[in-house]
Amino acid sequence: MKGIILLAHGSRDPQWTASFEQVRAAVERRRPECATALAYLEQSVPDFVTVVDQLIARGTTLIEVVPLFLGAGGHVRNDVPLLVERAVARHTQARFLLKPFIGDAQAVLDAIADYAAAKPATPS
Amino acid sequence: MKGIILLAHGSRDPQWTASFEQVRAAVERRRPECATALAYLEQSVPDFVTVVDQLIARGTTLIEVVPLFLGAGGHVRNDVPLLVERAVARHTQARFLLKPFIGDAQAVLDAIADYAAAKPATPS
Repeated sequence: MKGIILLAHGSRDPQWTASFEQVRAAVERRRPECATALAYLEQSVPDFVTVVDQLIARGTTLIEVVPLFLGAGGHVRNDVPLLVERAVARHTQARFLLKPFIGDAQAVLDAIADYAAAKPATPS
Repeated sequence: MKGIILLAHGSRDPQWTASFEQVRAAVERRRPECATALAYLEQSVPDFVTVVDQLIARGTTLIEVVPLFLGAGGHVRNDVPLLVERAVARHTQARFLLKPFIGDAQAVLDAIADYAAAKPATPS
């Protein structure tokens, strides 16, 4: 089985994860053959290591990791690659594929720009 | 003149803003008649108050504010509305329109899901 981990920042606010849950459900609809899970760097649960272990225990042999970050700071450039590197070292029987963060995806930036540029329903 | 403020979190990492600069340029292409500016809640500059003052000084009379946040935590629910509320009080000659945050926009979530679900170029 293949797995997809959507890795987001996390927040102490429980409502913060709602949009990410929607993305997870939408990814699951698009790739129903994969086990798709959310994981968080900080504050929210579950964390990345826990999710990796769960997917491996379910027999996942290839895990795609998608960083759900808009900006590339230290989390995207350092923390996320380090987590994946450690997962590779711990689970030598599985393969990991780290995708570029979503702020690097032109289609995502275009969708954000479309939304931001849409004229409001209540005109001046 | 109308203005659009794209309000993002900010980071101490200077590379963090690159994706947001791309969004700003794309919004400007879509609505060339507007003054489109980025502003940040924390760490990055310029901050929201500075950008509002600049737009008002340029004669902007209607400012749309778009929170570039994926998750709705305290920033989206409390800090951003408070900033807009204060701007409304300070600039009674202008109108402000606060749009829902981008994590609330179905088209944005769909674009993220499309990207996350895309099968990688290097197959298993």
